[in-house]
Amino acid sequence: MKEFTFLSIGLSNFESSTWSLISGGITAPYGFKASGIRAGLKNSEKKLDLALILAPEDALCAGTFTQSRVRANCIDLCIERLLETSGRARAILINSGQANACTGKKGFEDSVIATKALAQKLGISESEVLICSTGVIGERIRMQNLLKGIDLLVDSLSDSGSRDAAKAILTTDLIEKEIAIEGYLGGRRVRIGGIAKGSGMIHPDMATMLAFLACDVGLPKKAWDDIIKRVVNSSFNAISVDGDTSTNDSFLAFCAGDVLDKEYFNELEMGLKFASTILAKSIARDGEGSNCLIEVKVEGAESVMDAQIIARTICSSSLVKTAVHGCDPNWGRILAAAGRSGIIFSPEDVSLWIGSIQIMSEGLPIEFDRKMVVRYMNEIVKVKNSNKETLLICLRIGTGNFEAYSWGCDLSSEYIHINADYTT
Amino acid sequence: MKEFTFLSIGLSNFESSTWSLISGGITAPYGFKASGIRAGLKNSEKKLDLALILAPEDALCAGTFTQSRVRANCIDLCIERLLETSGRARAILINSGQANACTGKKGFEDSVIATKALAQKLGISESEVLICSTGVIGERIRMQNLLKGIDLLVDSLSDSGSRDAAKAILTTDLIEKEIAIEGYLGGRRVRIGGIAKGSGMIHPDMATMLAFLACDVGLPKKAWDDIIKRVVNSSFNAISVDGDTSTNDSFLAFCAGDVLDKEYFNELEMGLKFASTILAKSIARDGEGSNCLIEVKVEGAESVMDAQIIARTICSSSLVKTAVHGCDPNWGRILAAAGRSGIIFSPEDVSLWIGSIQIMSEGLPIEFDRKMVVRYMNEIVKVKNSNKETLLICLRIGTGNFEAYSWGCDLSSEYIHINADYTT
Repeated sequence: MKEFTFLSIGLSNFESSTWSLISGGITAPYGFKASGIRAGLKNSEKKLDLALILAPEDALCAGTFTQSRVRANCIDLCIERLLETSGRARAILINSGQANACTGKKGFEDSVIATKALAQKLGISESEVLICSTGVIGERIRMQNLLKGIDLLVDSLSDSGSRDAAKAILTTDLIEKEIAIEGYLGGRRVRIGGIAKGSGMIHPDMATMLAFLACDVGLPKKAWDDIIKRVVNSSFNAISVDGDTSTNDSFLAFCAGDVLDKEYFNELEMGLKFASTILAKSIARDGEGSNCLIEVKVEGAESVMDAQIIARTICSSSLVKTAVHGCDPNWGRILAAAGRSGIIFSPEDVSLWIGSIQIMSEGLPIEFDRKMVVRYMNEIVKVKNSNKETLLICLRIGTGNFEAYSWGCDLSSEYIHINADYTT
Repeated sequence: MKEFTFLSIGLSNFESSTWSLISGGITAPYGFKASGIRAGLKNSEKKLDLALILAPEDALCAGTFTQSRVRANCIDLCIERLLETSGRARAILINSGQANACTGKKGFEDSVIATKALAQKLGISESEVLICSTGVIGERIRMQNLLKGIDLLVDSLSDSGSRDAAKAILTTDLIEKEIAIEGYLGGRRVRIGGIAKGSGMIHPDMATMLAFLACDVGLPKKAWDDIIKRVVNSSFNAISVDGDTSTNDSFLAFCAGDVLDKEYFNELEMGLKFASTILAKSIARDGEGSNCLIEVKVEGAESVMDAQIIARTICSSSLVKTAVHGCDPNWGRILAAAGRSGIIFSPEDVSLWIGSIQIMSEGLPIEFDRKMVVRYMNEIVKVKNSNKETLLICLRIGTGNFEAYSWGCDLSSEYIHINADYTT
């Protein structure tokens, strides 16, 4: 479990818990199935572009969505149906290629038609089917191809289909994002699994690009909703790739199974938080054009929210991101970002570390081995391997008792190239 | 006056006014002197790095500064002195090279010592001298060189010294930023002049990187303060280069001379707004690595502030900036940015233009000549000349009576190169 080195992750309590990593992604929890196929929604002749997640009959789904005023039609439909059924959803249809945002009433009708066709094929109620879309804004879904694909999509459902589904929801992402963990709560085996996508337009506001989580225990609706809200706040809402919140951000989390005893809710929440954080970090790590994951820890704050806002402001700063990319220990930019975060703190109390090397102590720069910092940054940023390394920044802003993390990535010329001609 | 084409600038009333452009920058107004020399603060052997602005004896100075919690020592001193003297400042000493931010008590003492030396040489009170610094955060001013330069700096003062001062305050800027206008108010000749710097870490919050304005009429303190506050809001606070607010943002505006009749205050404010907007736009246009100025107009809003927040969110979006850089009419990103601005509006009411070409009407994309938009963008972004062109984006969000502008620039690989190794 590479995640638990040094400062990393902020889930240090987790090590003592009963959870451990397993394979299987979103289909690891009991009773969940998934599939992913190529329906011809993307221009690519190879890439999968249509995914399905099927939950057991007793499933409950909590959803959080983009807070943007300009949101996709599919999100309106999800919100409507989750309200209508009190969260009794069974299936999520996910298409990549077209975002179906800014497409008006006809775009909304497309979402309705797609879910209706899927509901008929599955033999369940239309209101139990949700839909998520990702791709180019302003483009309607290629409905003919989607509808043609429904049969194959349902026929492909399997309890090991997570990987295909994880592939089919990607756009500019380079790698699939999956997680599964297993633990024993009161002697009972519990599994949590999830998949996610996202590598550009990532600055989630109460949700994330697209992420789906499943868990094979039952919980009362209010407890589940509350837990998921807290989990999202410290995971998906703590990442940023480019500061741009998407029109299609959606996080949907299922729980299904015999009701879990209340005394294990905390332990379960730890697991959900861990799984969500891994997925969120994998989105930031796969940020467009990035060479590393940046992890910012802010400690000594007066509240978790204060710490999180500062951490995220640092993580989102173009100047911090370019300095990391250039392996330039220009730490003043970290302070400048913290200063403009809107959170009140005393600059005289600030201490700063890059990796394990202290740069500032109580408001003043201290003598540090500049070459060592550059070497540390180089080792993380310049090393090319499939598993991008994590650059650690820790800022102590006072003597408060609260801390929080945020994750982002460096800003490279490659990001410019990717985004300068996305639709052309 | 190239500024007044088509949508540009949002000062359409200005055309009917009595103001016209003149040369002379900040020394155009009666009684103002300036100078700029090379004192050896920058590593370059050619670049000027120390500037002085001297105002007449009856001058009144209004200052607005960064809202960042991490602000430079010189700003603390400016605020202290403007309070102490009720704005009765005479001189501003400006050094480029070291920002003198995050340098603790010793950094503050440096500012005090520098202003004391200058006050002695000028024969004025220490409390009437202000100081502004720009450069690398965490580095103290090279005091020995600065103090050695004071004599030459004062001896070089002249009523045509604006250009030298404008040069001496630059860091990564490519061009000097000066403005001067002249008008007749009640038969009396009035001049407004200013200089500014800034091309990175530009996302002013109630102030700007460094900008200085002078005006040769007298006004009561409260009237002047109020006018300057409004002027800053629609000019310097409406630009963004990279979303990063500086630790050293300062805008200082002098008025000096016989008291102006109250009936001309509005006309004067128009002139100040115009001069400040030109300076602010020149900062955005000179944004690090940029190829063009982006002007975003938001109209049909319920308040000026609503319009301005949306306009600035669009202007600050990495995805909008890279799309402009790539001449990619990926308009969905403009809508996505507006949607996440936090301002309430109905997506169904939105209309959008790029240049003079309409892209959306009442919430829906309309058929538009894509090639024509690409050609328009190419003509602005790809044409290389010293005078960067302006790309126009207009978003109508409803039927409200208010509008506002914001200015930014495209995001290029060059920005990454400039910022990936700023201190190394």
